[in-house]
Amino acid sequence: MSRKVAVLGASGYTGAELVRLIATHPILEIGALTGERKAGMTMGEVFPHLAPLPLPRLERIEDLSFEGIELVFCALPHATSQAVIAGLPAHLRIVDLSADFRLRDPAEYLKWYGQPHAAPELQAQAVYGLTEFYRNDIEAARLVAGTGCNAAAGQYGIRPLLEAGVIDPDRIVIDLKAGVSGAGRALRENLLHAELSEGTHPYAAGGAHRHLGEFDQEFSRVMGRPVRVQFTPHLLPMNRGILATIYVEGDPQAVHRALAQ
Amino acid sequence: MSRKVAVLGASGYTGAELVRLIATHPILEIGALTGERKAGMTMGEVFPHLAPLPLPRLERIEDLSFEGIELVFCALPHATSQAVIAGLPAHLRIVDLSADFRLRDPAEYLKWYGQPHAAPELQAQAVYGLTEFYRNDIEAARLVAGTGCNAAAGQYGIRPLLEAGVIDPDRIVIDLKAGVSGAGRALRENLLHAELSEGTHPYAAGGAHRHLGEFDQEFSRVMGRPVRVQFTPHLLPMNRGILATIYVEGDPQAVHRALAQ
Amino acid sequence: MSRKVAVLGASGYTGAELVRLIATHPILEIGALTGERKAGMTMGEVFPHLAPLPLPRLERIEDLSFEGIELVFCALPHATSQAVIAGLPAHLRIVDLSADFRLRDPAEYLKWYGQPHAAPELQAQAVYGLTEFYRNDIEAARLVAGTGCNAAAGQYGIRPLLEAGVIDPDRIVIDLKAGVSGAGRALRENLLHAELSEGTHPYAAGGAHRHLGEFDQEFSRVMGRPVRVQFTPHLLPMNRGILATIYVEGDPQAVHRALAQ
Amino acid sequence: MSRKVAVLGASGYTGAELVRLIATHPILEIGALTGERKAGMTMGEVFPHLAPLPLPRLERIEDLSFEGIELVFCALPHATSQAVIAGLPAHLRIVDLSADFRLRDPAEYLKWYGQPHAAPELQAQAVYGLTEFYRNDIEAARLVAGTGCNAAAGQYGIRPLLEAGVIDPDRIVIDLKAGVSGAGRALRENLLHAELSEGTHPYAAGGAHRHLGEFDQEFSRVMGRPVRVQFTPHLLPMNRGILATIYVEGDPQAVHRALAQ
Repeated sequence: MSRKVAVLGASGYTGAELVRLIATHPILEIGALTGERKAGMTMGEVFPHLAPLPLPRLERIEDLSFEGIELVFCALPHATSQAVIAGLPAHLRIVDLSADFRLRDPAEYLKWYGQPHAAPELQAQAVYGLTEFYRNDIEAARLVAGTGCNAAAGQYGIRPLLEAGVIDPDRIVIDLKAGVSGAGRALRENLLHAELSEGTHPYAAGGAHRHLGEFDQEFSRVMGRPVRVQFTPHLLPMNRGILATIYVEGDPQAVHRALAQ
Repeated sequence: MSRKVAVLGASGYTGAELVRLIATHPILEIGALTGERKAGMTMGEVFPHLAPLPLPRLERIEDLSFEGIELVFCALPHATSQAVIAGLPAHLRIVDLSADFRLRDPAEYLKWYGQPHAAPELQAQAVYGLTEFYRNDIEAARLVAGTGCNAAAGQYGIRPLLEAGVIDPDRIVIDLKAGVSGAGRALRENLLHAELSEGTHPYAAGGAHRHLGEFDQEFSRVMGRPVRVQFTPHLLPMNRGILATIYVEGDPQAVHRALAQ
Repeated sequence: MSRKVAVLGASGYTGAELVRLIATHPILEIGALTGERKAGMTMGEVFPHLAPLPLPRLERIEDLSFEGIELVFCALPHATSQAVIAGLPAHLRIVDLSADFRLRDPAEYLKWYGQPHAAPELQAQAVYGLTEFYRNDIEAARLVAGTGCNAAAGQYGIRPLLEAGVIDPDRIVIDLKAGVSGAGRALRENLLHAELSEGTHPYAAGGAHRHLGEFDQEFSRVMGRPVRVQFTPHLLPMNRGILATIYVEGDPQAVHRALAQ
Repeated sequence: MSRKVAVLGASGYTGAELVRLIATHPILEIGALTGERKAGMTMGEVFPHLAPLPLPRLERIEDLSFEGIELVFCALPHATSQAVIAGLPAHLRIVDLSADFRLRDPAEYLKWYGQPHAAPELQAQAVYGLTEFYRNDIEAARLVAGTGCNAAAGQYGIRPLLEAGVIDPDRIVIDLKAGVSGAGRALRENLLHAELSEGTHPYAAGGAHRHLGEFDQEFSRVMGRPVRVQFTPHLLPMNRGILATIYVEGDPQAVHRALAQ
């Protein structure tokens, strides 16, 4: 029994990867794809490696009928996403891959993203999509917020330690190394091959990275009081992958037990 | 006895590399540097790896006194270069690293660069700067045209074979692999790390690359009749370097002798 | 209705990639895996990215029961492969990914691989596994010889042109650029990151590469007379992928028609 | 007035780079080069990029006359270095690039390198070669120990802060990212392009890296009491360069002032 899904924003990096993964999924089936600027094109025209897959043509969101669709993946830019999702039919379940619904506190959203949220009631309903820790909530949710890539990498190692109470919550350092595709296809000088290859550099040092907002929210929720970590992401000369080197204080045996169980 | 030189356009990739090389030259000494948009800055501010060198500050060309300067290196963009050089004091000798003076036939220049040459009388005087083949001309020249990078790489292997008469001039294939810094710092999608790394692609296939004009000019000059080669450059996921794989027809022993002598 | 397969040599690069692909195949199902030196281990222990897949443990070939298995993929080293395949139960169909059964002429095999073939009767039965050109033969075959990676890349562009009779068969140049994983995990100095990254070089130049034997065999078969091409492979600083730049002589319109149809 | 130097072990990565740098030095002049396994060869035969330089042929150390030589650079493997240096003529001044003379306490040397030092009296005389902090000692020294690459990178940021007393010496984290050429030309699987490119990994985690011995020695010397740091080096898919991300606790303004002065 297959379930029909739509992917909004299928012509970007994230959308294309999603389509590739759904194409071999045992239950999900792609019923519709949208791409504003590429509407009318086939996915194979935009991404040649997807040409062999039997996929619907790209449409504009406003031309899309959601009949028969049960689930929508939203791979749209930040801010656009909340406006589009607010207008979707009520019967749809939604997984949003933008940053729009990761922070549940409107004040935090304003602080990290610089503008008020356009769909605050949806924001309150959204479930933080870190499956390993919110599996039951996600199962029941209408709207799931895909987590930040850095934010997920950091939480996998730290949450079990905070929950087990074996580390000092106020002395956590996350030194993160990330591939460049996470920055998308933006035409920025520091993303050029001649600038990035054979080098590495931190970015958003000193607590300026938006994923820090997710660490704050999630670790504070676990501990029941404000927790602030040190977090420095670095851009590496590789396309994919994230390595988080995490420094904590606690008894090594206890830390190992908490992670191994 | 040192000789004072100026580098025009010292704030680009080419200019910076030139400055780095001149800095350890036994005779040349840097007397002046220009950079339009970076005028007033030190080289170390633009390129941190040059900070330890004792270098003059960047100026605007119009503010530059050429007193005491004997030689000017011109690392300006194509087309700009010919206008600037036309206005330089007559006592200066000039090495131009742009494409402006490589082709000596105005019709060829128009064909490959799409506009008439602005300094045709200088164009006629310029010497093609491939030292291994034009050493005497270069010594006597007022204006030397630095060759195209691909054009140089191809000629090193082929000229000795044409001059020795050991290959068929009408069956030459140049398959060229070039690092990405040759494309400069332009913000183009195909120069992004995520697009270029882990891949390679030909560009300007089918005879569209401007360096083909240099092959035509030089090989025809050697043979005294029109010679046309096949030339396909490829962009490789590396920053520097060029490898030209050249396919010719001729007796292998004779080819080897012509190259080894 | 699934069909059970075994993968022999599943602990190498080729075997692991095969397992990854079969795992999402709609019909094939993995029934057994072998790996001589890693026997007893799980695939997840050898390749962490395969840990989530439900896979049988690695066994030694001699411990393997082929009951219920219909198809065997053989990802063993050259020479080992022919010995193992000669001893497999008669009911099995086999896809061999080594070089052992690509050349059908024993004299050619001896010339390119330096030793007589150990299973010449199987060699005569094997079908050359280039699906686009031998689909019917492959369907009927007991033993399919997976083609060389470079050999496949070159044939895709050239065979249609030879079959259409639109190019000169005696003037074909194949300049091939290949990623480094094709060389496997061998500990060779020229495969080190510090040696290979930021550079490229030809290898087996001058007609020394074994895949040239496949070009000879296949192009001569198409033309009904001996055909010899020029073929120079290059190692590029990327892990995967092959680009073949092919130079031919013929009418461009006819060439385009032959490829486009 | 030039000063003649010899480079022992000139045929390795370190030796070759040293030769390249000395070749453009205003005062130093290369008088002799050794390379045990490459004795009799020219440097250009071993490293083609050095072929244009006028350099002496490689000799064996035992064949070398040190007449006229004032300074010796020793780029030999660890352990070999101490034996060779112990036998050098007394008039020579020596810069050793191995790890042999970095640690001055014999017990520390034994702990980190697993064997007793073969020249303990020289070990006691050696000056730690971090020029920015030991300039006067280096000027007077007969034997200078080149520092570990990681050890140098970490000290540049931390020593000024310890000396100024503005950070907590017991809460220092050094997360270090290093290019792969630092591991030399060893044939190890994790140094292959296909394994290293597109990935990164920590090594010697948990306090196992020998450069930690240098941090211990130097920071303890500065503070006059034992100081232990957290140090995790990572291998990055780049050939050269080191980035040390350092986490400290202290007043940000005071830290900035200590670094800026």
